[in-house]
Amino acid sequence: MYILDDKSKIPLHIQLYSEVKKDIILNYKTGEKLPSTRKMASLYNISKNTVKSAYSQLVVEGYIDSYPQSGYIVTDTINLNTEKNNLSSIIDTEKTEDYLYDFFPARLEKDSFPLKIWKRIFNKTIDDSLDFGAYSCGQGELGLRVEIAQYLNQYRAVKCQSSQVIICNGFSDSMGLLAKILKKDFNSFATEDPGYHLALKVFDDFGYKINKINIDNNGLDIDALEKSKAKIVYITPSHQFPTGVTMPVANRQKLIQWANEKNGFIIEDDYDSELRYTSRPIPSLQGLDNYDNVIFLGTFSKSLSPAIRVSYIVLPNQLLPLYQKHYDFHIPKVSLMTQKTLEFFMKDGHWERHLRKIRTLNRKKHNLMKQHLIEQIGDTIKIDSQGGGLAILINPIVNFNWDLLKQLAIVNKLKLHFAKKFSGDNWEAIQMGFGGLKESEIENAIKIFSTIWRKCIL
Amino acid sequence: MYILDDKSKIPLHIQLYSEVKKDIILNYKTGEKLPSTRKMASLYNISKNTVKSAYSQLVVEGYIDSYPQSGYIVTDTINLNTEKNNLSSIIDTEKTEDYLYDFFPARLEKDSFPLKIWKRIFNKTIDDSLDFGAYSCGQGELGLRVEIAQYLNQYRAVKCQSSQVIICNGFSDSMGLLAKILKKDFNSFATEDPGYHLALKVFDDFGYKINKINIDNNGLDIDALEKSKAKIVYITPSHQFPTGVTMPVANRQKLIQWANEKNGFIIEDDYDSELRYTSRPIPSLQGLDNYDNVIFLGTFSKSLSPAIRVSYIVLPNQLLPLYQKHYDFHIPKVSLMTQKTLEFFMKDGHWERHLRKIRTLNRKKHNLMKQHLIEQIGDTIKIDSQGGGLAILINPIVNFNWDLLKQLAIVNKLKLHFAKKFSGDNWEAIQMGFGGLKESEIENAIKIFSTIWRKCIL
Repeated sequence: MYILDDKSKIPLHIQLYSEVKKDIILNYKTGEKLPSTRKMASLYNISKNTVKSAYSQLVVEGYIDSYPQSGYIVTDTINLNTEKNNLSSIIDTEKTEDYLYDFFPARLEKDSFPLKIWKRIFNKTIDDSLDFGAYSCGQGELGLRVEIAQYLNQYRAVKCQSSQVIICNGFSDSMGLLAKILKKDFNSFATEDPGYHLALKVFDDFGYKINKINIDNNGLDIDALEKSKAKIVYITPSHQFPTGVTMPVANRQKLIQWANEKNGFIIEDDYDSELRYTSRPIPSLQGLDNYDNVIFLGTFSKSLSPAIRVSYIVLPNQLLPLYQKHYDFHIPKVSLMTQKTLEFFMKDGHWERHLRKIRTLNRKKHNLMKQHLIEQIGDTIKIDSQGGGLAILINPIVNFNWDLLKQLAIVNKLKLHFAKKFSGDNWEAIQMGFGGLKESEIENAIKIFSTIWRKCIL
Repeated sequence: MYILDDKSKIPLHIQLYSEVKKDIILNYKTGEKLPSTRKMASLYNISKNTVKSAYSQLVVEGYIDSYPQSGYIVTDTINLNTEKNNLSSIIDTEKTEDYLYDFFPARLEKDSFPLKIWKRIFNKTIDDSLDFGAYSCGQGELGLRVEIAQYLNQYRAVKCQSSQVIICNGFSDSMGLLAKILKKDFNSFATEDPGYHLALKVFDDFGYKINKINIDNNGLDIDALEKSKAKIVYITPSHQFPTGVTMPVANRQKLIQWANEKNGFIIEDDYDSELRYTSRPIPSLQGLDNYDNVIFLGTFSKSLSPAIRVSYIVLPNQLLPLYQKHYDFHIPKVSLMTQKTLEFFMKDGHWERHLRKIRTLNRKKHNLMKQHLIEQIGDTIKIDSQGGGLAILINPIVNFNWDLLKQLAIVNKLKLHFAKKFSGDNWEAIQMGFGGLKESEIENAIKIFSTIWRKCIL
């Protein structure tokens, strides 16, 4: 007997549908007949239409079939696999990590995001002139691409038009798109060692053969690159990650020649070049190339916010037809609201002002961290990299117990980040990120760090 | 002679840097010496520090080297490849397509997005309690994942916890992540034919062998799947794209058995199941599976907005460790602002209300389009699919000139969309999308379409 409650908010035909469905699963065999609609209606004192409605849904879902002469017959339903899972709760416990200080090198200060301005522009810009019922341009909004192209021309010496810019939702999204586009013609990929693990990972996931090329004082070892079979190379020439080396112009020219001779491509990742504290930003390598072989990557994660998820690619003109034909699915990768807000944030001059502000803020923190590191443990370290980005790279010049450092850091709730080579080589360094720390926190953070550090000297 | 303008807004050392750089590129040879800082200072009547500053930047960029005894020497700069590109303008001309009516089946009505509510929630929710200086949870915000899990449990009969939900920025992003995760153990992928081209494309890009499995009246041909070597299958069981077929429960059970026996996975794409007009939404296949082999995909593109770029994956528990270890880069795929706004949009009950609204709106348009199609050309077509989603699928039952239809559509500024099989088979149908049309436009749109249609009957 089914239980139907005519006072329930759930319509009767849906109640009946659920009851009959359970009944079929538990008690019916294939080929058995359900009670006729007339019989059900009189049995439960409901209308025939209610029954028909419930049965129709079961027909649509395939539990029963309707036959003109014989009524409703249970289909070939296999009664397997239908025990109910008892979920204690939908919300699973998720552990969160709690640190006193996190020296993560890709983090900005919480209050540095221009939230008030952003919200003002959002409220002004997002209105019903925009179409949220459709997919906007797959490459990204033209207006935003124009702003980015202008910025890159003016500040990064990148030669490009808006048609070459593709808006992506972050570095690995940008790299993933490139891995796809380049797969048609290439199967081998060169990257810096030490270098950014995510660049390697993305191309590895697409099945490229990976060539790890050494970094020396002039950046990438171009001789080693020439000896490899790769025709695509990923580099961070203006501020090598993680060593901080700047590739000199002579090597840039050599690399451009290499790409031209191989009919290959240079992927220039310009991830944090806006942040230079002791010199002006280094102009892009892309701007030196007249052979149309440099793919330029940029991001708003290191200087505006990693939480808004916007990056971009500047494609060489020769790759545009391939992209448009095979990989622009007419589906944008970033929300229209974010794109439009960022467009007017740039157009109204806030981006330039923000860059100046964030450069000054981070210069102070950079200098403060350097000063405290030197004061506290200057006799035991060498500074491998400084003057740009969001971290200072240090290394012990004394015999040192790395494992102990890692253990003590955990005990003292410090989150440390290490730079290592991909290959067997035992080079290692510590990335002392200051981006996420407040000016007022740096002294104490370095104090605790230095106390631990001294305990690890052998 | 360099031109320096001390009334310019550009600082003197930067002017000097630019002039010297140009000079080096055009006139200097490797090993030549630059004028000393003292000499330059007196020549241009500027301070020695200004010159030093300009030279330092050139050192950093690698144009010159500084030697303690001999001063500044031009490095091994190859004077190649430095002609200037004359870019007429940054803004490239981009063609836009202009249609009278576009029958695109993945489009919503412009005014259907609840913009006022969205903005109100955005303004209330986005404040400085959120951290825009950091990467938020790579899997997506816990709060949003809880809302999605609750919705799926309640409305789609999906059994899941929030820890299984991964927020992505759209279908191809979701599929790309799966292609990566599954690559460790699988190299062959089965998909529906006819089916969604993007599902095929994403796995093809990752190098999977593609198996195209026929669709019949019960959905996927499971016998054909069993004969293939694939252990992963992509399906749209509740509303097959593009045929609209619903897979009956017996076949769902068979498929679940298949996955269990093969230790394989079913990727269930539930792209538009919220939109059913003649029956209740079909419960998910995932909810029938107790072997933890179904990967469930959903999106907000078909019922809220394709422009906000939010989709999700529900991973089986057995895949979570692999995902967390290798593919959660601690980098979210959707902006924190969008995630938070959507979370409270759902939490406050707007999502449920919106679904009811959009279902009613599209039911009306669906019925109107069907009515006008039958009135105008009912004698010459059969309706292959109706009752759900954002399109009605039609096919001629008379001898018909398809090429002429395509040509006349262009001439009359109608954008038509066709469904085809991937394989050689000549099945073809027309997807008459109503989602993007206003109620008041449908009559006229079908009138123009029908006039063209009649001209193509042989």
